[in-house]
Formats: sequence, structure tokens, C-alpha cells
Amino acid sequence: SAKGWAIQPLGKFIGTCMYMYLAIGGVDAISYSASSVCLSSIRSNHQSVIVHLHSSSLGQAFAFGIALTVTAWASFRILGAMFNPAIALSSLITGHISVPKFVLYFISQLLGAMLGAALARGTTPSSERILQVNGNNESIARGFFLEFFLTAIVCVVYHMIAHEKNRSTFMMALPYGLSIFSAYLFATRYTNAALNPVHAFATSLSARWFPRQHWIFWFGPLCGAILGAALHILLRYMDYD
Amino acid sequence: SAKGWAIQPLGKFIGTCMYMYLAIGGVDAISYSASSVCLSSIRSNHQSVIVHLHSSSLGQAFAFGIALTVTAWASFRILGAMFNPAIALSSLITGHISVPKFVLYFISQLLGAMLGAALARGTTPSSERILQVNGNNESIARGFFLEFFLTAIVCVVYHMIAHEKNRSTFMMALPYGLSIFSAYLFATRYTNAALNPVHAFATSLSARWFPRQHWIFWFGPLCGAILGAALHILLRYMDYD
Amino acid sequence: SAKGWAIQPLGKFIGTCMYMYLAIGGVDAISYSASSVCLSSIRSNHQSVIVHLHSSSLGQAFAFGIALTVTAWASFRILGAMFNPAIALSSLITGHISVPKFVLYFISQLLGAMLGAALARGTTPSSERILQVNGNNESIARGFFLEFFLTAIVCVVYHMIAHEKNRSTFMMALPYGLSIFSAYLFATRYTNAALNPVHAFATSLSARWFPRQHWIFWFGPLCGAILGAALHILLRYMDYD
Amino acid sequence: SAKGWAIQPLGKFIGTCMYMYLAIGGVDAISYSASSVCLSSIRSNHQSVIVHLHSSSLGQAFAFGIALTVTAWASFRILGAMFNPAIALSSLITGHISVPKFVLYFISQLLGAMLGAALARGTTPSSERILQVNGNNESIARGFFLEFFLTAIVCVVYHMIAHEKNRSTFMMALPYGLSIFSAYLFATRYTNAALNPVHAFATSLSARWFPRQHWIFWFGPLCGAILGAALHILLRYMDYD
Repeated sequence: SAKGWAIQPLGKFIGTCMYMYLAIGGVDAISYSASSVCLSSIRSNHQSVIVHLHSSSLGQAFAFGIALTVTAWASFRILGAMFNPAIALSSLITGHISVPKFVLYFISQLLGAMLGAALARGTTPSSERILQVNGNNESIARGFFLEFFLTAIVCVVYHMIAHEKNRSTFMMALPYGLSIFSAYLFATRYTNAALNPVHAFATSLSARWFPRQHWIFWFGPLCGAILGAALHILLRYMDYD
Repeated sequence: SAKGWAIQPLGKFIGTCMYMYLAIGGVDAISYSASSVCLSSIRSNHQSVIVHLHSSSLGQAFAFGIALTVTAWASFRILGAMFNPAIALSSLITGHISVPKFVLYFISQLLGAMLGAALARGTTPSSERILQVNGNNESIARGFFLEFFLTAIVCVVYHMIAHEKNRSTFMMALPYGLSIFSAYLFATRYTNAALNPVHAFATSLSARWFPRQHWIFWFGPLCGAILGAALHILLRYMDYD
Repeated sequence: SAKGWAIQPLGKFIGTCMYMYLAIGGVDAISYSASSVCLSSIRSNHQSVIVHLHSSSLGQAFAFGIALTVTAWASFRILGAMFNPAIALSSLITGHISVPKFVLYFISQLLGAMLGAALARGTTPSSERILQVNGNNESIARGFFLEFFLTAIVCVVYHMIAHEKNRSTFMMALPYGLSIFSAYLFATRYTNAALNPVHAFATSLSARWFPRQHWIFWFGPLCGAILGAALHILLRYMDYD
Repeated sequence: SAKGWAIQPLGKFIGTCMYMYLAIGGVDAISYSASSVCLSSIRSNHQSVIVHLHSSSLGQAFAFGIALTVTAWASFRILGAMFNPAIALSSLITGHISVPKFVLYFISQLLGAMLGAALARGTTPSSERILQVNGNNESIARGFFLEFFLTAIVCVVYHMIAHEKNRSTFMMALPYGLSIFSAYLFATRYTNAALNPVHAFATSLSARWFPRQHWIFWFGPLCGAILGAALHILLRYMDYD
């Protein structure tokens, strides 16, 4: 029925919007406070003690990981928990969703992420954050492979906990969210950790600046989705024969 | 029976009191230590290295999120886990509680929060914390919408995990607490994150100062409760027809 | 049988020893590193930037909360998860354990905590930490009530999740550990947060110094145990009649 | 069948590789950022405020603990969650795996850790981290016993939650990962916390430097595996007779 086809994309739209609002807002709040502290201490004391620390990585990992846990948990039963085209592509390859569903999900995720990023920009004073390989001696090529491998891990985790039905599937939002936590704790320092093309696109759009390296946030995750699907198919083949 | 009517409000009173005691006390402990450190380093060295960092946001998010997880988990079976009039209002709109229950719950929550805040003040040396939009270039209007949207998300999460019975309802305290964690990680920097009118009221009362903008901590969450209920009704309508 | 009587105290002994080893060692590691950093920055730069921050509270809360979650989870089936005489006393009052068991458990917990603290001292270079109301303008009287109320909350949580059998009892270690996390996040700044007499005793013994105020770490938690038991009995009476 | 024998080692290889990639990468990201911050503040201000804090311990504990939770959760059903030869040795002694399986698992874990560490080196600019007793007044002997005791605790926890079948076995990845979190929070300051010989070997190999004390990262965990197995056998004997 028409309604049956509408509920899933609507759910992906609302879910991705809530996820992106919580996650982008949380990361902005943590980055913003760090910057403002540094500026104020420079101005009043004529010394710049830059304390932009690892706790920032930790805070950003919590912002993304817990936002995903919460929204995926809430969405599990009637919405599904696919807020990332890389996960959708990987599920398309492993045969869990069809091509028309993939297209609908992708559009819903893109629109949801755009609305979430816009709301985060609208309700806070800060919004200059865009995703790019952020100095720290990280090269574009390494950044691409980082996005590639981490997305592959997240996809394998997703397939194993969501598609292999087992006794813990009902609480799959927890390990799924923690896999994003773990990946962000790693990648935040180097590439700001998208692992999700619509996330990278929406933040770039809301800051109105697409850096030349923007492609790695599309190709890295999408290659990761293919590798993740391949690993899952290999493991399934080994196990079930 | 009379006792049947008494247990729920009593449970809400005790639960909100324990929640607010743990949460307000935890946030005060973290803010207080930051301030005292800054003061002492100013005095002894004639230089003010202000290290009021993102870990403060992170610590405050943990204080509220885990306090709610713990008290909601303990209260799940015989008390229910409604320590927030915004959640109660949203449940009234979606039809899960009746008007008399809503009134009783609201009074219990208000009294519980007042006792919790008073105990936190009584057992610690610090208690000047009140909720207000806290500078950082955040405007009152944006602060209102921040409270609005974040409360709406928390209400949607609550409806989906508590009212849609499913296999993970028995551990709903975990995603519910984590939704508050996520929202606080976002909003602490901008509005100090009430998302709960009785929390804002109780802390203002215990500090004996109601700032002019106090209204946003009532209207923001209550508007959020309505939006959250509307989204839940929409999703239910799409799914169940 | 003799073996049936031996397994429970043995389990409490091993469990409390593992819990205290992980928790005291973790807290020492976090405090120790903070101190050494300050000293070295003073020596080399002639300026003392004291960065003994809230992240210390957060780290200490994680050290205790997760150590308890882990050891209580492992002990759930064959050992029970009672590593605290306050919990044991509260369970005695609510009628869940008998007087001889309480005495045996108390002795096991005391010996286990002493061995755990001694092993933590033996395997690390640092061990001067003792529990006391630690300045910050906190008075002894307020410190007593802080230990009192927080232990009462932990006891209520314990009774509700361990003694009221329900669908989440099998994973009670998680909310139980998180209740200690929440309480430590609050109290670490003011009293170093014992909430457990054998913890306070063992750390004082291993540092060979009992401050005059040591009594609050016995009377606070034990009064809390009584209040926690009373609240649980009241709630049970309201619910089950 | 040949395939039946291949799936388990293949699973251990892929799982250990994913675990080590996430964990080593996460720890490097946190350590690396701390160092670079210090350097830049020295250069521009002629004052070295070394802020290599406890949050580093906390961040590293999260990197390892959550990486293990995620990969063990994903691997639970078809791969098993044994990414550590100390756990495998302990399970050999308690009779849960056979000698040929132990040998196969050990080789898989070693190769997986080597690949994971190499990928972490290849996709990031930083990779000088090797495991050693890291100053802070910690002696080699104490470091050995620290690795010994902490691995014993982790092994006891693993046996109690994975081998004693119970209602929470399906989510054993959570307490298992948290036990590593707890142990790392303790040991990171003193020995950088291996608790896992293939982890120590792979990071030393990828940095091409084996310090003289490298043996403690083999003998400490393996002695811990034996003590953990002995404790488990004692508890089982007490309980089941």
C-alpha cells in the first residue's frame, strides 16, 4: 500500500533528522566552547594556552555514538535504524533491501540530515564546522583509507547484529551506537570522521563551503560499504554451508 | 483504592527527589571544582588560565544522563519513570495517562524536585547554580527553540520505547537516560539544559533567583512535549492503519 | 552443608578483592598522574598551573562505577554481588539475608577490601590516598549527610533491581554499577565518596593513617542503609497490599 | 569438515584485526593530539604547559574497552569473541577449548593483531607508540604483577560470563568490554596496559622496537591466564559439588 511505502522513508527522514540534530549540535557545542575559552584567555592574559585536547575527541565520540544509540533504539521497531547511505548500500549488496528502497532511503536520509544540520545551525550561535582532513599531518590518501576501513567495520558490525537474527537483536542499537563511538574516537583527530556521506554533505551545505577533498567523504564510506558487505557475505558463506 | 492512587504520586515524588539530588549535586560538584581551581590559580600566580572546558559539558551530561538511567531503572516496575512534567504532558496528549493523574504527577514531580534541590544545597558548600541562557552568544529566542526541539526528541524517544511495548521495554531506562545525556551534551553550553520545568524551577528556587528568561524553561519543554506527542501520533497512524 | 556455607563468603571475599583492586587502582592512577603533572610543570617553568579538574571526578566515577558493574556482573550467578556492608545491612533489615550470613559477609568484605587495597599498593608506585572530607569548604556534618543520603539512594536502587525480581534482574549489575557512578560523580569532590565502610577502612589501613573524621565513612553509609531499607519497605507496603 | 575448522580461525583473524585497528588507532589518536598540542604551545609561547592528563587515561580506556565491546558483540554468534591468547590459554586450562584449537586461535590472533596494527600505522600519520613500563616511578617487577593480576581478573570475568551459561550470556560483550575498560583505566598510567601478548607484540613490531622489558607483556598475561583459570576451577568446584 501507499502508506506502507511511506512509513519507512518518513521514519528514515525523522530519524536521520533527530540523529543529525543531536550529533552535530553536540559536536558543535564541544568544539565551540573550546575555541571561545582559548580566545578569551588570550585576550585577557596575553598568553595563548591552547587546551584543545583529547577530551574533545572523547566528547565528540560521545556526541555521535550516543545520539545514534538513542535514535536507533527509538526507531528500531517501527522505523528501522538506517540513517546512513553507506549502511543502506551495504544492505543492498547483501540483499537485505531492494533498489527502490535504497533510492527512497537515500533521499530520506539526505533530506533528514539537511534539516537536522539546518536546525542545529538555527538554534545555536556556532556553525562553522565543516568536515575536512584537518591538518595534523594527515594526508588526503590516508584520510580516504581511514574513512574506507572504519566504515567497513561499522557495516560488518551492523550486518552481524541487525541482519543475523539472534537473542540480542532487540538491543542492537547499543553495539551499533558504540561502533560509531569507537570509530569517531579514532578518526575525529584526522578527518573529523564522517563515515556517512549525508552527514558530510549536510554540514558542508550548512556552512556553505565544500572543500576540494569533499569527495573522500563520499567515496571512502561507499567503498567501505562494499568491503563490509563482502566480508559479511564471506562469513555467511563459511558459516552456513 | 486510595492506596492504588497514592503509590504512583508517592513513587514520582521519591523518584524525582532522588533523580534531582543525584543530578543537581553531580553538576554542582563538577562546576564548583572548575571555579575553585581557576580562583586559586589566579590568586597564587597572577595569571588566570581559565580551564572551564568541554569536559565540563561531558561531565554534566553524565551527571544528568546516568542519574536518570539509574533512578528510572529502579522505578520501572513499581513507580514508573516519569520525573518530568513535559513527559507527563506528552503522555497525556497521546492518551497514556488521564488528566487527574497528570495533575497528581505534576505536583509530585514539583515537590520531589524541590526536596532534591534543597537536599543538594544542604549537603554541599556550593549552590549558586541557576538555569539561564548563559552568554556564549546564545540568544533567548534560539535558547527557547533549543529547549523546544530537544524536549521533543526526548519525548519521541520516550513514547517509542516506553509506550510501544517491545522486547526492550524492560530496559527502557537505558535509552531514556542516554537521550537526556545526548540532549545535555548539546544544550549545556547554551542554556544549561533544563528540558524539565520542575528542574529549572527547583534550582532557581534553591538559589532564590528567578531570571527574567525563566519562562523559556517552562514554555520550551511544554511546546516540545506537544510536538513530541504529535510526531508520535503521526508515526502510530502511519504504522498501524 | 559446609561447602554451601563456604561458597558465599568466599565469593564475597574474591569479588570484593577484585572490585577494590580495580577501583582503588583506577582512582589512584588518575589522581597520581594529575599530581605528577602539576609538580613537573611547576619545577620546569616556575609557574604552577594546577589542572586538577572535573575530569578527575569523572575519571574516578568511571573507575568505581565500571569496576562494580564488571565484578557484580561476573559474580551475579554464583557469588552474589554484595561487596558493601551497607548493602548487606540494608538487606538484613528488609529480610533478604539472615544475621549469621550478614556477619560472614561483613568479615569476607572486610578481608577482601584489605587484600584488594594491599595489592593495589603493592603493584603501583602511588598509594597515599585516604578518604577524608577534602577541604573545598565542605564541613564534616554536611559530609556525613552526603554519605548518608547517597548510600540510601544506592540501597533503594539495589533493593528495587535485585530483590524485586523482574525481567531485568539478570542484568542488574549495570544499573547497580551506574548508581555508584552517579553517587561518586557527586561526592568525589566533597568526601572522596566512600559509601562503603570497608572501602574507607581498607584505604586508610593501607596508607596507615586514620583521620579523626574516619567515623563518617562508617556511620554515614550505615545510616543510609537503614533509610534505604525503610524506603523500600514503605514502597513494598504501598504496592503489594 | 575443513570449512568448520576454517571459520573459527578466520573469525578470530578478522575480529582481532578489527579490534586492534579500532583500539590502537583510537589510543594513538588521543596520545598524538596531546603531544602535538604541547609542542605547539611551547613553540608559540615559550612556556611548556604539559597537559598530558588523566583524560588521556580515560580516553584510552574508552578506546580499548568500547572497541572490544563492539567487535566481541558482532562476533558473538558466528565468530566467538576470543581476541587474546591469554583468554584462549585460560579457556584451554579450564577445558573449554582443545590444544589444536588453541594453536590455531593463537596464530589467527597474532596475524590479526599484526594486520590491525599495520593498518592503523598506514592510515594515520602517528605510530611511534610502543608498550613499556612508562616511568612514573613504576618498576618492572610491579609492572609484571600489574599485568598478571589484571589479566587474571579479566579471565575470571570472561569465564563467569561466557562459560557459565546464564540469561545474560547473549550480551556478554558488554561486561567483557567493560572489564578491559576498567583494567586499562588502572594500568595505562603504569605499563600502558597490554593484558594481551599479541597486542604488545603487534605494536612493538609496527614501531620496529622491542624494549628489553617486552617479556612482561607475555609472561604477565599468561601467568594471569593461569591464575584466572585456577580461580574459576575453584569457584566451580565449590558451587557444583
